[in-house]
Amino acid sequence: MKGVLLSLATGAQLVDIAHDIAAQDIDAARLAVARYWRRFPAGTVHLVVVDPGVGTSRLALAVASGGQYLVGPDNGVLSPALFARDAEVIALDTPAQASSTFHGRDVFAPAAARLANGVTLTELGVPVDSAERRRTPEAIRDADGTIRGEIITIDRFGNATSNIVARGGGTVAVAGLELRVVRTYSDGEAGEAVALAGSIGFLEIAVRNGNAAEMLRLERGQDVVHTRHDAQRNSA
Amino acid sequence: MKGVLLSLATGAQLVDIAHDIAAQDIDAARLAVARYWRRFPAGTVHLVVVDPGVGTSRLALAVASGGQYLVGPDNGVLSPALFARDAEVIALDTPAQASSTFHGRDVFAPAAARLANGVTLTELGVPVDSAERRRTPEAIRDADGTIRGEIITIDRFGNATSNIVARGGGTVAVAGLELRVVRTYSDGEAGEAVALAGSIGFLEIAVRNGNAAEMLRLERGQDVVHTRHDAQRNSA
Amino acid sequence: MKGVLLSLATGAQLVDIAHDIAAQDIDAARLAVARYWRRFPAGTVHLVVVDPGVGTSRLALAVASGGQYLVGPDNGVLSPALFARDAEVIALDTPAQASSTFHGRDVFAPAAARLANGVTLTELGVPVDSAERRRTPEAIRDADGTIRGEIITIDRFGNATSNIVARGGGTVAVAGLELRVVRTYSDGEAGEAVALAGSIGFLEIAVRNGNAAEMLRLERGQDVVHTRHDAQRNSA
Repeated sequence: MKGVLLSLATGAQLVDIAHDIAAQDIDAARLAVARYWRRFPAGTVHLVVVDPGVGTSRLALAVASGGQYLVGPDNGVLSPALFARDAEVIALDTPAQASSTFHGRDVFAPAAARLANGVTLTELGVPVDSAERRRTPEAIRDADGTIRGEIITIDRFGNATSNIVARGGGTVAVAGLELRVVRTYSDGEAGEAVALAGSIGFLEIAVRNGNAAEMLRLERGQDVVHTRHDAQRNSA
Repeated sequence: MKGVLLSLATGAQLVDIAHDIAAQDIDAARLAVARYWRRFPAGTVHLVVVDPGVGTSRLALAVASGGQYLVGPDNGVLSPALFARDAEVIALDTPAQASSTFHGRDVFAPAAARLANGVTLTELGVPVDSAERRRTPEAIRDADGTIRGEIITIDRFGNATSNIVARGGGTVAVAGLELRVVRTYSDGEAGEAVALAGSIGFLEIAVRNGNAAEMLRLERGQDVVHTRHDAQRNSA
Repeated sequence: MKGVLLSLATGAQLVDIAHDIAAQDIDAARLAVARYWRRFPAGTVHLVVVDPGVGTSRLALAVASGGQYLVGPDNGVLSPALFARDAEVIALDTPAQASSTFHGRDVFAPAAARLANGVTLTELGVPVDSAERRRTPEAIRDADGTIRGEIITIDRFGNATSNIVARGGGTVAVAGLELRVVRTYSDGEAGEAVALAGSIGFLEIAVRNGNAAEMLRLERGQDVVHTRHDAQRNSA
């Protein structure tokens, strides 16, 4: 892919973003895109190739939003940009000679290189309305203010991020344990599992100097419940 | 190595290619070079440091072909370029103060930087004829059209590539199983092992949403046999 | 972090250095910085984010030395530059809106980008004298010339580096074994553990075609003793 990019877009700067997405993990790739894509400057082309459906009839997409471009398969990985109000989406033409197992090299990289060269979106294919949009499941707020959510991703440190917007105080129940909500990793005792506001604003389960996912056997989709002890008062 | 490159070749663009070659794995490095080197534009310098013989009398090589350069040890990793008709090969001078354990930093990176700066191959050393050339073993075609090959490399998804040129149809025998030949990863049932044309045109063993190498306990060198049921007719 | 860097420092070249530092491993990061930072050209900004104390009152530092800059937490990771005679050190201002779990993105990357843009150190914060300096423990030389040290780091090949300056000859005792001191990895028999001068000049324990750390169950801090059989004569 990098050879194709540099051959077609002379002088383009290549930046590796995520080396630790598990094979075929569309949701992890989607969440990674959500975290970072808006941090990049206008003109950036994001090439997202987590593509278990390669070679099938799934579309190949290019999206433009806010002066940036994203290129990847129509399987939900590009959803964070598809939800943007100004998103334009086209289906890329697939060259007849493309392999049926590596569109990263044969379809997506050539399109990304052309966008980097200033080719417009509409020159690369036809608009589509039906692109697959995946959302992170929303946490549910009970009448008493308790929030019921789930683990949505686990990072390489073993920290598990939930879909519960972090607010201070209270306790978090997960994996049969009740955890304190703290402010920094260092607020936990060594080896203590705690909950805190992660870097994207959601409650995160972590262990100081440890791997929370391994120690608590956490998995994506597992229930997380945040009880704020002042919940009654604030439940407006 | 990167510090040396950037210090000697100001403004050079560094591109990481393969983070997942196992330590000392000359054949995996050679196959990676084979897959990608011709995809890069003229002027590219490929720095290939899989070098178990560092510090011995093995030569340090630089190769020029098709306007590109490759730099690395004389142990076969550069073979894909050495087989090119226009390949020129020289043995790099080894500085007296080079360490005996890290020529990547002390020998290969300085030579790569000089090539990136426009220094010619012949300024860096003397021509050699005897560079080590390794080949992928060839698959064998029986009289009845059956092709007998082997697994030559396994990627980080657990997909195993054989040395059998992919043609549609028939069945593939490997690890005591008989597999369907399909067109895309998605043509397999979830968990089913199948064979298909991989991205470089060879038959590949894969499991949909799974790791074929782990599930089938595949290893490099293991027998793979492709039987085409129309083999008799096509055996011209 | 990369999005922040490229948004604030247009055209900056990003270079990934170390993908294999274990989570929270301040000493491994410090030793990596020691090995490479002086190899880079003037103007380089090193961004070092191994930061278990993120969100606490630990300072955020920027260091200038020899025309290069380093940015990171005040936990010892920047020590190799702090020991330089010309080192200038300032404490970075922490923006009020910085998260308490990811200063890499919210504090260090913006400062690194500003330094790359030519902003001077003193524009970014106030000088500090008390930055944390960690040293590699020194090996001890006995009266008879025997050197007693320890393993200070283990690389991804399983090679273990000690804090004993490599000199030829003699034997090395580690993990209950007595090892030959050789010159190159290839001087060992296949599977033999040996000691040799590593790339930074310290004695290193390695196994030809093998992983020394796994085979000998080596750990950081483990005793290593180098006995030179001519030690008596040279003990001046």
